[in-house]
Amino acid sequence: MASGDSTKSGKKPQEKQQNVDAATTEEDFAQGSYGILPLIQSKEKCDRQLLLVRDINETLAKQTIWVRGRLHISRGKGKQCFLVIRHQSATIQAVVCVNENVSKPMVKFVSSITKESIVDVEGEVSLAPTPIESCTQKNVELQVKKIYVVSPAEPRLPLLIEDAMRPDEPNTADDAQTARVNQDTRLDNRVIDLRTPANQAIYRVEAGVCKLFRDTLDNKGFVEIHTPKIISAASEGGANVFQVTYFKTKAFLAQSPQFYKQMAIAADFGKVYTVGAVFRAEDSNTHRHLTEFVGLDLEMAFSYHYHEVVDTIGDLFTQIFKGLVERFATEIAIINKQFPCEPFEYLEPALRLEYKDGLALLAEAGVQMGSEDDLSTENERILGRIVKDKYHTDFYILDKYPLAVRPFYTMPDPNNSKYSNSYDMFIRGEEILSGAQRIHDPQLLLERVKHHNINVDQIKSYIDAFRYGCPPHAGGGIGLERVLMLYLGLGNVRKTSMFPRDPKRVTP
Amino acid sequence: MASGDSTKSGKKPQEKQQNVDAATTEEDFAQGSYGILPLIQSKEKCDRQLLLVRDINETLAKQTIWVRGRLHISRGKGKQCFLVIRHQSATIQAVVCVNENVSKPMVKFVSSITKESIVDVEGEVSLAPTPIESCTQKNVELQVKKIYVVSPAEPRLPLLIEDAMRPDEPNTADDAQTARVNQDTRLDNRVIDLRTPANQAIYRVEAGVCKLFRDTLDNKGFVEIHTPKIISAASEGGANVFQVTYFKTKAFLAQSPQFYKQMAIAADFGKVYTVGAVFRAEDSNTHRHLTEFVGLDLEMAFSYHYHEVVDTIGDLFTQIFKGLVERFATEIAIINKQFPCEPFEYLEPALRLEYKDGLALLAEAGVQMGSEDDLSTENERILGRIVKDKYHTDFYILDKYPLAVRPFYTMPDPNNSKYSNSYDMFIRGEEILSGAQRIHDPQLLLERVKHHNINVDQIKSYIDAFRYGCPPHAGGGIGLERVLMLYLGLGNVRKTSMFPRDPKRVTP
Repeated sequence: MASGDSTKSGKKPQEKQQNVDAATTEEDFAQGSYGILPLIQSKEKCDRQLLLVRDINETLAKQTIWVRGRLHISRGKGKQCFLVIRHQSATIQAVVCVNENVSKPMVKFVSSITKESIVDVEGEVSLAPTPIESCTQKNVELQVKKIYVVSPAEPRLPLLIEDAMRPDEPNTADDAQTARVNQDTRLDNRVIDLRTPANQAIYRVEAGVCKLFRDTLDNKGFVEIHTPKIISAASEGGANVFQVTYFKTKAFLAQSPQFYKQMAIAADFGKVYTVGAVFRAEDSNTHRHLTEFVGLDLEMAFSYHYHEVVDTIGDLFTQIFKGLVERFATEIAIINKQFPCEPFEYLEPALRLEYKDGLALLAEAGVQMGSEDDLSTENERILGRIVKDKYHTDFYILDKYPLAVRPFYTMPDPNNSKYSNSYDMFIRGEEILSGAQRIHDPQLLLERVKHHNINVDQIKSYIDAFRYGCPPHAGGGIGLERVLMLYLGLGNVRKTSMFPRDPKRVTP
Repeated sequence: MASGDSTKSGKKPQEKQQNVDAATTEEDFAQGSYGILPLIQSKEKCDRQLLLVRDINETLAKQTIWVRGRLHISRGKGKQCFLVIRHQSATIQAVVCVNENVSKPMVKFVSSITKESIVDVEGEVSLAPTPIESCTQKNVELQVKKIYVVSPAEPRLPLLIEDAMRPDEPNTADDAQTARVNQDTRLDNRVIDLRTPANQAIYRVEAGVCKLFRDTLDNKGFVEIHTPKIISAASEGGANVFQVTYFKTKAFLAQSPQFYKQMAIAADFGKVYTVGAVFRAEDSNTHRHLTEFVGLDLEMAFSYHYHEVVDTIGDLFTQIFKGLVERFATEIAIINKQFPCEPFEYLEPALRLEYKDGLALLAEAGVQMGSEDDLSTENERILGRIVKDKYHTDFYILDKYPLAVRPFYTMPDPNNSKYSNSYDMFIRGEEILSGAQRIHDPQLLLERVKHHNINVDQIKSYIDAFRYGCPPHAGGGIGLERVLMLYLGLGNVRKTSMFPRDPKRVTP
């Protein structure tokens, strides 16, 4: 295989390629220009430059180049075969046509390559006679000279990328006849499902949210910390916590890094954040619950008022929303194509409402609830809709929750003992952050612990952290997968967790 | 408290301060200028600007400013009291001296403030008559006008910051008489221990390593991903894995994100990294083992040879080493003051040796071992010393390990079946990264699984990930705490884990 002539593409990937498994005949003049490569085992170095599909355009016209990608689609028609080669979100058409370089057996071989196989293709870039609407590289195509299979896919795929790429809701009556892939099939075969353009884009945007979170906070003087996931005692009374066998004893998985963030504040780090796994042993099988998710947590000492922190978090979200539009417009457009949603609106600075005012808005809309009751998920959604209609924002802050519905460490409101210095933040009517000023005084903390009937012994090291001076501080925790699900309007948190965990799923 | 005059420092932190707990007498003219503030509960906003200790310098001379910090040291002498106010790594001297603003009872009150209490101080910045060698702000001091305790520390501290700041090895005979704080006392009282200048610096440098890791890889086109920590089966045969009670069944904590990184490669993400908790249920009580640590993991598809990946990782470390010197010289100097160590040397590009050549260097030095034996920790250290003497580098790559000592998924060396396409990387003679080209062919993978007597059923979803086309790829995992421990010469990985976990410790 691989003819002996020295092209600009340089050395061959393997010294001897006679053993490739091509359908050769004695008279096949293209023998050596196609076949299945031996396993790439790094036998020797190769200076061939592989271009990326997304970089192939008109400027390369008439040049002969190498590209590696998956066989996305192949249609053989007698003496020629049309291929679509895919790499990540980019696709290009490639034509294998019987000519002075390409033999009939070569076309036959190409037609037999299984979908999703990875191939190395040498071809001349030519301008497309008419734009190729089905590919991302619309103005060029490749006239194939050589093609080798690098890694073959098994012939029966558990799901087809074309099916997995379709919007959930059919656009037309014709479209309604085509196959859809259900969530479990997707997740069971996640390695294939993740290859769709929308999924390629979703996880790049997710990485973008993390980067924007960190970079914004780095610029504000925060320090990144790492907090332990294995803890000695269930922090908030023992419900919803996973137990771990720890050598000859037992331990638990942290439901939040909050106590550790607070200890970092008591240890003078001033402003800290941490990104990491958070565990909830809730048997909730909903669109928005995971048993393991990524927490974007921050905590910050303030001078005199916790709104210093609320404003910081509000601005953090503004920076994230701005950054997403600036840096990820292409990815967001790809995602919207498969998962259409209402354009995202936000205000700068972010809208902050008090809880009691939120309840008043609900009451106006005919939703009655007690002033110290917690908002149900349904009422949160209704309020989100009201706020969107009234203020034209999909993001807002609800401040001053009733003390009764918040955890023991929440600072009571000094001006009204029914309320507390705590807040939730919402995207499209669903909660994505919960936070508060924390009690930094050990005596008041002990009182609240007792009020909540929590075992003091279990959280002794937490309370002790405040005995040696601690600045006033507040913070919050953001659920990464929820932010992305809601921002993109995806409707299910399993669409924004690469390998989601819920009560019924711990694989793959 | 807080006199009614309106200074440029603006509104008072609390509307009514009469209830502060000051030792007042009827004739105390300074009444209102000192005391214990009521708990800062965000009663109302306050536009007083608090400066940071590190920002107070000669340019502020003669100005009256407010600063918040801890009472680091106080020495009362009759009519005056010298304080050192500390914030993070910065310290400044403050003088409380009986004068037209300061009464005797006020000096007495200040002398009674407990160490580590947080105080708000109003004072005039004055030039120090002679440099104050014991403080970081050497050229200025504060003439105190007002001082309030924001958060008091209990009088008996479990450890003293001055003691915790001392080098482990006494410098002088006098110094040998002073107290040291042992590791367990530090960790039991971590919130105080973390306040030392060295610890403040260590965790900032640690955040810097993470940032340099991510930024360097972002620039190289990597995508950040998040991998699950709860997994359904122990990946490498079940040893050293923590078991989790998962609703009515059981699960395990991931010992590495490797399988998931590889799945992301099979899913076309091309180059990925992840930063997160990694769990090892090893009952190892050594200076370098933790049961939970932070993994900096990366995985990368390559074109034809895994050295493309090795070179990428080598350059990653070069960028980290460069970035640390450029951005964290101040922090590193602070750490070296308490923990002196040999200056760190590295080569660019990084030195890469083959395993067999490493053994030859050891043999020259009289250390004999079998060519297919693994390096012991002791021999790694000896080899590190030899390499340092010969090549003047504290970082190097050891390539082509014997196949027999590597995990089942390691790609065998196609040129010599005794070896493999795998590598470790070392800092100061200790391993900080282990990696390899992985087998991306399901048939070869199955052969190796059988060779290692691993239960195929348990890793079915892993093997299946390679059935539908996968590019050749390689990667590695870095232990964050080890990198920092070794780079800084700290000698114990518990010094670089904010809340370390080992077989005997899961608190605080």
